[in-house]
This record gives sequence, C-alpha cells and structure tokens, in this order.
Amino acid sequence: MSTALKREAALRLNYRPRPRPRRRAVPLKTLYTASDLAGLAHLDSMPGTAPFVRGPYPSMYTAKPWTIRQYAGYAEAADSNLAFRTALEEGAQGLSVAFDLPTQRGYDSDDPCASAEVGLAGVAIDTVDDMARLFAGIALDRTSVSMTMNGAVLPVLAAFIVAAEERGVDAARLTGTIQNDILKEFIVRNTCIFAPEPSLRIAADVVDYLARYAPRFNALSVCGYHFQEAGADPVLELALTMANARTYVETLGQRGMSADDVCQRMSFFFGVGTDFYVEVAKLRAARLIWSELAARCGATSDNARALRMHCQTSGWSLTAHKPSNNVVRTAVEAMAAVFGGTQSLHTNAFDEALALPSASSSRVARDTQLMLQHEMGLCDVIDPWAGSYMMEALTADIAARVRSLIGEIDARGGVVQAIRSGWIRARIHESAVTLQGEIDSGQRVVVGVNAFVHGDADDAPACFQPDGNQVRAHQIRRIAEVKLRRDAQLVAHALGALETAARDGTGNLLALTMRCMRARATVGECTRALEAVWARHAIGLHPSAGIYEATLASDAMWKAACEQVEKLASTLRRKPRVMITKLGQDGHDRGAQAVAAALIDAGFDVVSNELFIAPAEVARRALASEVDVIGVSLLAGAHVELTSQLMHELLACRAAIPVVLGGNVQADSAGVLKALGVADFFLPGTRMHEIVLRMVQLATQVADRATGEIDDRTLA
Amino acid sequence: MSTALKREAALRLNYRPRPRPRRRAVPLKTLYTASDLAGLAHLDSMPGTAPFVRGPYPSMYTAKPWTIRQYAGYAEAADSNLAFRTALEEGAQGLSVAFDLPTQRGYDSDDPCASAEVGLAGVAIDTVDDMARLFAGIALDRTSVSMTMNGAVLPVLAAFIVAAEERGVDAARLTGTIQNDILKEFIVRNTCIFAPEPSLRIAADVVDYLARYAPRFNALSVCGYHFQEAGADPVLELALTMANARTYVETLGQRGMSADDVCQRMSFFFGVGTDFYVEVAKLRAARLIWSELAARCGATSDNARALRMHCQTSGWSLTAHKPSNNVVRTAVEAMAAVFGGTQSLHTNAFDEALALPSASSSRVARDTQLMLQHEMGLCDVIDPWAGSYMMEALTADIAARVRSLIGEIDARGGVVQAIRSGWIRARIHESAVTLQGEIDSGQRVVVGVNAFVHGDADDAPACFQPDGNQVRAHQIRRIAEVKLRRDAQLVAHALGALETAARDGTGNLLALTMRCMRARATVGECTRALEAVWARHAIGLHPSAGIYEATLASDAMWKAACEQVEKLASTLRRKPRVMITKLGQDGHDRGAQAVAAALIDAGFDVVSNELFIAPAEVARRALASEVDVIGVSLLAGAHVELTSQLMHELLACRAAIPVVLGGNVQADSAGVLKALGVADFFLPGTRMHEIVLRMVQLATQVADRATGEIDDRTLA
Repeated sequence: MSTALKREAALRLNYRPRPRPRRRAVPLKTLYTASDLAGLAHLDSMPGTAPFVRGPYPSMYTAKPWTIRQYAGYAEAADSNLAFRTALEEGAQGLSVAFDLPTQRGYDSDDPCASAEVGLAGVAIDTVDDMARLFAGIALDRTSVSMTMNGAVLPVLAAFIVAAEERGVDAARLTGTIQNDILKEFIVRNTCIFAPEPSLRIAADVVDYLARYAPRFNALSVCGYHFQEAGADPVLELALTMANARTYVETLGQRGMSADDVCQRMSFFFGVGTDFYVEVAKLRAARLIWSELAARCGATSDNARALRMHCQTSGWSLTAHKPSNNVVRTAVEAMAAVFGGTQSLHTNAFDEALALPSASSSRVARDTQLMLQHEMGLCDVIDPWAGSYMMEALTADIAARVRSLIGEIDARGGVVQAIRSGWIRARIHESAVTLQGEIDSGQRVVVGVNAFVHGDADDAPACFQPDGNQVRAHQIRRIAEVKLRRDAQLVAHALGALETAARDGTGNLLALTMRCMRARATVGECTRALEAVWARHAIGLHPSAGIYEATLASDAMWKAACEQVEKLASTLRRKPRVMITKLGQDGHDRGAQAVAAALIDAGFDVVSNELFIAPAEVARRALASEVDVIGVSLLAGAHVELTSQLMHELLACRAAIPVVLGGNVQADSAGVLKALGVADFFLPGTRMHEIVLRMVQLATQVADRATGEIDDRTLA
Repeated sequence: MSTALKREAALRLNYRPRPRPRRRAVPLKTLYTASDLAGLAHLDSMPGTAPFVRGPYPSMYTAKPWTIRQYAGYAEAADSNLAFRTALEEGAQGLSVAFDLPTQRGYDSDDPCASAEVGLAGVAIDTVDDMARLFAGIALDRTSVSMTMNGAVLPVLAAFIVAAEERGVDAARLTGTIQNDILKEFIVRNTCIFAPEPSLRIAADVVDYLARYAPRFNALSVCGYHFQEAGADPVLELALTMANARTYVETLGQRGMSADDVCQRMSFFFGVGTDFYVEVAKLRAARLIWSELAARCGATSDNARALRMHCQTSGWSLTAHKPSNNVVRTAVEAMAAVFGGTQSLHTNAFDEALALPSASSSRVARDTQLMLQHEMGLCDVIDPWAGSYMMEALTADIAARVRSLIGEIDARGGVVQAIRSGWIRARIHESAVTLQGEIDSGQRVVVGVNAFVHGDADDAPACFQPDGNQVRAHQIRRIAEVKLRRDAQLVAHALGALETAARDGTGNLLALTMRCMRARATVGECTRALEAVWARHAIGLHPSAGIYEATLASDAMWKAACEQVEKLASTLRRKPRVMITKLGQDGHDRGAQAVAAALIDAGFDVVSNELFIAPAEVARRALASEVDVIGVSLLAGAHVELTSQLMHELLACRAAIPVVLGGNVQADSAGVLKALGVADFFLPGTRMHEIVLRMVQLATQVADRATGEIDDRTLA
C-alpha cells in the first residue's frame, strides 16, 4: 500500500470515532426529564439540613471555600517543614502530612526492615523531636493538620500531641484530622500492623482520648479513597466506607460513647475519579446515606448526621504516558469533588504516575484548585446541580444501590466478618481486574495509552527523588542522640506500662503512648512494646483466575500471547513459573494482584508472596520454588534500593533468575536498573499481553541456557 | 522584622483567603431552589424541539459527540496540509483553517503591505494552486472544513471551490462553514476590507451562491467569540451576535431569500470563558433566544430555528505567566462548552499567550477534548444540567437581559447604525477596560498573575515560529510562476467583469471571482479589482477616558504611578506624550485600546493611529507629533520583523524616540528585540501601573538627554 493510501486509510479509520458508553456500576440513561424526579424524597431538602444532599453547611463555599489541603511530606522533618511553610505562604489552606512507609508501619529509621524506604514516600518521624521540627514555626492552634496515620497511629499521634504540648499548645486547641481508619487497611491499603481486633481497640482508644482532651480534632477519617484506588466501583466504595463507619460507631458505642459523640468526631475521605456525573452524584449520595445510617445508629444531632468529607483526585487515573494530560484529568476530577460539596481537597500532581511530585508539578496541582476558587466562579452558588433531573435521579439511584450492598455485607455478618472471609478483597480485586481487562482490550479508552497514542510525547518531567540513604543516616544519628540523652529507666517503665495495658486490656493506649513519647521512646520502641503482646498481621496476595480472561475473550493480541505461553509450556513440559512479589513496606497491591491474575489466565504457574517481605526471603523462595522469572511491583519510590538488594541476594545464592520490575519507575533510573541487571521494567499503563510476552521471552532464554548447559555437558 | 516573624506574618496573610464573588453582567444568587423555576416557559422542552434550550438535536452527543475542530494553519500550504493530515489521523474530526493576515486582508504575499506577516498567523494562500496544495490528499467530500474568512471571503472561498472542482469534487458535495460574518469585523476583529454596505453585499452574494450550488455548506457563521475576546460580557456577546444574525436574515430577505433558507445555512460561533455557570447558561440561552428571533424573522422550520454552534475556549483568559495553568483554564472552559451543547469545539493550546502553538501544546489541547469525550463520560447524558434550579433560572435570566439589550440596539436604529455611531465599540471598550482595571486592582484574581504568584515558574515552553521570510520568498516565486503560465487576457477579462459587477451592482460576485480564480488570478488581484470600486475602509483606535481610573480609585500603586506622570508633566511643562499604535495587518486592538485608555487616565497625552498602518508612516507621525515614547501592540507573531522595520525607519529619520512593545512576545526573541534597540516589552498580564512607570522613566530619560544637549550647547 502506498504511503498516500495508508494515510487515506488512517484518515478513514480515525474519522469521527464514537465514544462508547462506559460500563458502570450505576448505568446512566441518555435522557432525563422532570419525570425522573417523581418520588425522590430528598428533593426538597436545603443545604445544612438533613439529609444533607445539598451539603453539610447552609452557606457552603459562598461563606468559606473548600480547604486546599495537599498531602505532602518527604525526607527529613526540616525538609517537609520548609515545604509546609512555603505551601501555606503560597495559598494552601491546611496541611496533610505524608509519613514514610517505615513510620506508617511502626519501624524506626534504623530498623533493618526500613533500610530502603526511609524518607521516600513521606517524612521520617522517629521521636517527638522529629515531630517538633516538622511543625516548627507553624501555628498549631490555627493550622488544621491532617495526618495519614493508621497502623502506627499511637506513637505518631502521641508524638504530635506531645510536641504541641511542649510548645505550649494544649491538645484542646489542636484542629485537624487523623485518618485512624484501620478497617480499610485490612481491605486494601495494608499499612496495618496488628490483627483487626487489637487494631480496633487502638482506634477506639484514640477516639476516646481525643474526645476527652482534643475535642476540636477529628478522631477518625473513614476512607473510601483507597477502595477506589484499589479498583472498587463507586457503589462498592460508598458501601464499604459506610459499613466501616457504622462499625466504628458500634465499636465505640460498646465502650459507652454515644453515637452523637462519635459521629461529630468523624469525617470521611473519598476518591474522585474521571467518571464525572457519577462522581458528583456519589458524594451527594454519601451524605444522604450517612444521615440515614447515623440516625439508625442513634445519632440525633444535625452535626452528627451531616457527613463532612475530604476528597482526593484519583491517583489511579493518572498516566505515565503523556503526563501533561494528567493536568486535565485532575482538573475535571477536582471539579467533580467541588460540585459534590467536599470540605477539603487534594489535587494530584501530573507526574505522580512517574515519581514523587516535583516542586513545579505540585504548584500546578495547587493552582488548579486556586483557579477553580478564584477564576471559575464555582464558589458563588451552593450545590449548583440541585434540581438537575440527571443528578438528582443519579444521586437517589446510587444511594439505593449502596443501601442494597450494605444489606449484602450485613447478610455476611458485617464488615469484620466479610474482611476475614476474604469476600471484600475478592470483590475489589474482581472489579480492578475487570477494569484492567477493559483497558487492555480497548473497551475503555485511556487517551494517549490505549488510543490516540500519536502525537509528540511530553518532555520527560524532571523527577523528584529524595536521597533516602542520607535521610536514614541523619535519622540514625538523631535516634542515637535522643537515646543517649534520655532517662533509660523512665523509658523502660513507660514502655512496660504500655505493654501491660495492651496485654490486660486496661488503660488508654494513646495516653500511655504519650508517656512513652514524652520520655523520648521512639516510634519503633512503642510498636515493639505492643508486638510483644500482639503479633504482626500477615497479608497475602490472592489473585483470582478467570476474571481478566473474561474481558479479553475476543482480543487477538491477548490470544497470541497466551499461545506463546502454551508453546513454552509444551517445550518445558510444565507451565512456566513466575513469582509475583512486593518488597519492603510498600503495601499497594492492586497492580501486583492484577498482573498475577492475568498471568494465571495466560497459563503461567504463579507463585505469590505475602506483603512486607524482605529481599533476602524473596531470593530464597524464588530458588526454592524454581521460578523462571521474578516480577517485582514497587510503587513507593524505593525501586532502585530494593531491587538492588534483591539482585544482590540472588547473586549471593548464584541464582540466575531474571527479574522484571513494574510500577512508577522513574525514567531517569532506567540506566541504574539496567546496570543492576534488571531484565525489564513496565510503567503503569503497560498492557498485560506485553508483560506476558516479555515473561515468555525471558523464561525461554532461561530454558535455552539450561538446555545449552546440558548440551555442553553432553558434548564434554 | 526577623525572617521567622516575616514568615509568620505571611502565613497569617495567606491563611484561607476568601474568593470574592465575581462582578457579573448577570448576578448569581448564592442559593437556588425549586421556587426559582416558577414560571420558566422553556422548562418542559425536549432536546431537538423548540425552543431548543436542551440542544438542537434529539440525541446530542449520545449519538455523535461534538466535533473536535482545531483552528490551525501556518506557513506554506504544504506545511499546513501535513499538519491537517496528521491532526485527522490523530483524532481531530474536522478542519478549521487559519489564513495569514495578508490573505485575510486581501493582499498577495508579494505585496509590500504583507512583507512582515506572510505565513505567520496562518497559512499563506495566493492562488487556486496554493489551495489545492492545502487540501491535497484530504477527502473534501467527507471532511468538513471551516474557514475563517471575512474580508477576503470572495477570492479565498472561490479558490477553495475551484480547487475542489478541479479535483472532481463538485461544490454540491462540500461540507463545512465559512465565517463570512463581516458585521463583527467592523465591531471588533477588524480584518474587514471595505465599508459595511459593500461588505454586506459581498456576504449576501456568498450566501446566495452557496445556497444554490453548495447546499451542504454553512454560508455564515455568526460570531460572538470575538466580542468576548475583545472584552464584552456574555450578555453583550449574545445580544450583538443575535442582532447581527438577524441583520443577515433581513439583508438576504431583501434579496428574496426566505428566512428558512438563510437560517438553515447559518451557524454560530461563541467564545467560552472562565465564568463557568454563566458560560454554560449563555449557550443554552443563545438557542432559546435564536429560536424566538428566527421565528420573528419568518423562519418556520425546526431546522431553521435550531441554533447550531461552534465554540472556542477563551484566548484572553490564557496567561503568559505559568502557562501550564492554561491547561486547566482551557479544560474547564471546554467542559462549559460541552455542557452548553456545542456542536464543535476548538481548545486553545496552553502556550498561545506566548506564541503560536507548538506541536506538543497542540497535542495537549486536542487530548483535552478526547479525554472529555472518552474518559469523563460527558457524552453519555443529553443536557445534563437540565432541571438544575440555578442553571435553568440563569438561562432564563440571561435570555431576558439579552432580549432587553437587543431592544436597546433596535432603539438605536439597529446594528449597522449602532456600528456607525461607534456606540457598540464604545460598549465593548468600556467592558474591556473595566475588566482590566479589576484585574490590575486585584478585584478579580488571576492565579499566578495578580495573586498566588509564588512558586516555581514553568520552564519556558519551546515556542514555535514559522520562518516568514522563507515562506514569503517561496510564495513570491510561486506567484511569479503562476503569472507566467496563465492566460493574461483571460485574467484581465475576468477581473474586469468582477470590477464591473461590483460597480454596477449586477451579477454574483462569488461566481465572478471563481472565474477569476479559475483563470489563475491571485487573491490580491481580485481584491484590487474591487478596490477600484470601493475604497479600503479605515478603522481608528478610540480609547475612552475615565473608565480605567474608575476601578482603580483606591489602588495605591496606580496613584503612585499617576503622581510620577504629574511630576514629569510639571518638569516638561506639558503632559508627556505617547503614541499607541498597531503595525501591519494585525487588527487585534483590545490591548492597544486598553493601554491607551489607561495612559490617558494616568495623565499622558495619547496619540493613536488607525489600524493597518505601515512602520514608515508611524515613524513619520511620531516625529511630527513630537511624542516622547512609542508604544507598539503586536499579537500576531510578526513582532520582530515589524519592530525591526519601525526601528529602521526611526533611525532613517534620526528620531531617538524610545519604543516599547506589548503583546505575546516570545521569550526567545527578547535578545533580538534588545539588539534592535527596543527599550522594553510587556507580556499580556502586565499591570498598567508598571507600563505607566516605565513610560515615565523613558520619557524622563529623553527629557534629560534633551536638557543635557541644551546644557552642552549652553556650555559650548
């Protein structure tokens, strides 16, 4: 075919493509009219009045816009402090602290388990003194501080309260939010430390203490965000969040706290994805449902029944290809959050599918919100979608579906039981893998990834990467200094009291941890005191067969890839075997689970490891299970360090197993990874059949080499 | 004050700023309820049914999404052809051709008036052969082509039809739109050539011809976009557009065309700015009003009464500072256009406040639309805002205000009379200068420009600049070749017939121009044939005093700047005198008018020139009027070439008058401009007091030098 003809054909092919209606958990009608409003009970409600569909407050943004609250934190306390102060000067309106994974998992920076991840995905905090440095010069009685703290909530929150107290700011004057939503950690986020029961006790102790001593602080932020990030559809996201919230109210009720008391201290946190209409309606429906559920739990005051929320734009919707398109995705998602009536908002930076946000991408993310507030006039009208035939009907429809799904969870014995049985994880996993299949097969278009991939690529953004080794070295020195100065007996006594209270079920664990922190115990020491009573909780990967394949039924490239697996299997006289693993403290398992599920469907024998595994253990198991390839998934910035440790361990045991890497691997570390001997790496957005083909290729090379060695011996 | 204290103060200052409600031509209420819908007559209407508030078609985007139609064109026909074909391959769904300013003003590329601007702001077209190259390989019977052609509509449209015809595509099979809205050129855009009456005759001949021979081609695209760009508020934008459209229907009615016939061939073109709710409602109201007006003009069919529109995001809202923020502005504006139910859309590239869009910024602009279509689910529901208390009330409110303003225009004798009297231009100018004053005084926030200016600047985007001199050289060669090959007698005969028809008011001018183009007459020759009958129309700058000052009443920096002017005036014993001028064929006069108005208010004596003036004439007048400074405004990419010509002319007459430049001056030409001797340049977004101060400084230097020379003489 001539070039001209080819061009002509391409023109025809691309001429006015019709977007396919999206598959949705909540199907939309193409046309809504006044008749769709018939019988909707919530229609006449006003903002600030139950059931709060139109917003938790009467004047909403017309009196005070949503709070621009960007989740941030990295490296050492002083680095993050500078970033916070700059952000506040430049228009941010509240702080949201990201702690590094070792801190979130209760490890000190000098712990071997933390060696690769100190100061990378957040700021490293080991002691009260770190916390004091983190907030130096920031008016803690006037700045609302949100902290993503779940597993290690006790020592980290204790450090915050003690640091404020030592600066003369009494707990009673602190405002902000602690996430403290441990149930969702068991379902998706995985930065839990102990099993559900002790974890619930810790969460309850925190709420109890804050209710008494820090009444302006939200003690619980119940999260839907992470369900969406893990692949849940909006109905599942809402139902799980609501069911979890209800469980907290019940748990605290059993300790004598009234539902009004608990609910007033609770806020919610939702993710906002690209499905615009549904996302707006979801947030309105969330308020509707919660006002019903809270009332059913016994809450009577408006303040208790009105759902207040923080929102974050979807990290999952960001693409590593053409990252500047993410500015648009984030802006549209931010608008959905605003139309949904959020109280505060984090907008993602456009380069987050590649790396931690740079100063410049963070600026664009913040400016996105400032423009929506100051240039677009969005704040001037309360709940502007009110009355819209589509939006009101959709709000009611989502609410109805959520009610029904909560009923299903109840029928399975409630949230904790549904977590234990694995039912909830399986539901989310199924949703995530189906979505991945839709993208890979082109049923769902992602611009620049599986369609419209032409055009200039963006210049690779300048990625930001803290120097983890330096942070660790500094933190190790600081921990040593603190330990040198402190009264060891006082520390031992306080830690002993904490352990006893954990064992006996007596005393408030937060109050006791505060005593430890005042005496300059470390985050890790407090956690170990509890570990003496409760073992660390293990979480495995459980990929499901058949889901991915179901959406790819008619995809030629997928079939071709599967045939290659079959061919290799017949050569090997067994299924090719691949290990899918996470490494270190990074618990983001959506990608690893999806890849594992797809590889199973492609015909691989998949060996998977539990989360939080050390590189040495991975090497040992890979050898023992005789896998052909190791696939590592890393999403928290420590890919070079952790992969380097793994390669070192494999070398040490003379295992020539090829290693591939998946995740938000920065382009600029490609060379380093190659030098380390990593066979390949896959950015988010890579289609599964490409991964399958590459795995086959690597496994074939291994097999050929093995055959070659046998031949050599035969010849010799 | 210590650094820590300063930081603390800054923190307080920036803590949770409240966005100010925006001043609007249509004030918004903070809360809308069902009671706001009482008595709204349009509420029960359905999409595709009069009054078409819910859309001109019954199924809207659920059957066929809006057409992605990016306005593009530059350099030579072959360059633009490649860009068009690539765009079509990569997802664009229709073409929209930008012609260069010489072409739009009816000058050939070898005309001295065109010397600096060939191929810069659009593609250079001189003959049918250029047009054939422009569309080579593009299926003209299947690709809808929009052309921004007003003043020189006759030769350019003739070239298009003849080029298609010579390729075997009959006019009857062509689809697309020609702008052909000459009235708005007299109000704002200024690329008109002849006076209103002959211009209206040309427009009518075009509609008449297309109705007979190219029935699928929209013969008129009535524009509101340029009113908004020039500073009109949404009510003024709509009222003028509607009044112009009605004038066309009436003018063509006088020639015997039925209202149904005219309206079916007419489409509309609106700008979409940042004021989200108002912009959505504006587009809905446009359909409502037009269905009434068209009916009143005698249109009876639904097809004639249903307004179809193209939209473009606001160029004016783009900032030269932190251009990546423009991605957000454009995305939000695009959403407003989509919610308003546009039939096609152009999204601006983020670097257009600095330069012509680069390949990479164009890609982001196009992807913005693709993401809205394919990822956000926006196409899945028809008119999603229908029923919204706010949106429906606002739609009706805007419509009411537009009806009333049309009544005011009628009271002034209709559009043509209101143009002649200068009333319309004054209204728009007033609106633009007030807006500028609000921005300069901080009453209206522009993020990164007058507020929230902290944070990393963007990397300067790689700007795109065609090589105008090379294009001109090539075009001159091509014109010469065409002239060598053609039958000179045939050409002369055809041009003579065109001139006669113009003079006598007989014959269809488009049909006659097509004969000229077939014979290979040039665009310039056809225009000159008409110039023999009708003189070129002159347009002056008419800045108004007092408007800018009114909004700056309490601005300390403005007052301080004015005091400097007063001080200088007392030294000079006269007002300092500044010339504000455009150069060449660039008719964008909003900026020049606004600066001139502000300088008058600041105490300058302002001399302004009519549009389309040559550099030599500017130099001559500057000397004659003894101005202290020359301020040149350029917005169409020819700043280096035109400024260079001006500096050369000033040098030639030994005039040491400092020259400053305003407009979208590319950062990378800063060095060149400095080398040419330009004293300073101001990007869009510069506040007026800064311009005033700089003018004072330059005028003072001139005065000092003059005094110095006098002193020298005194000493000698």
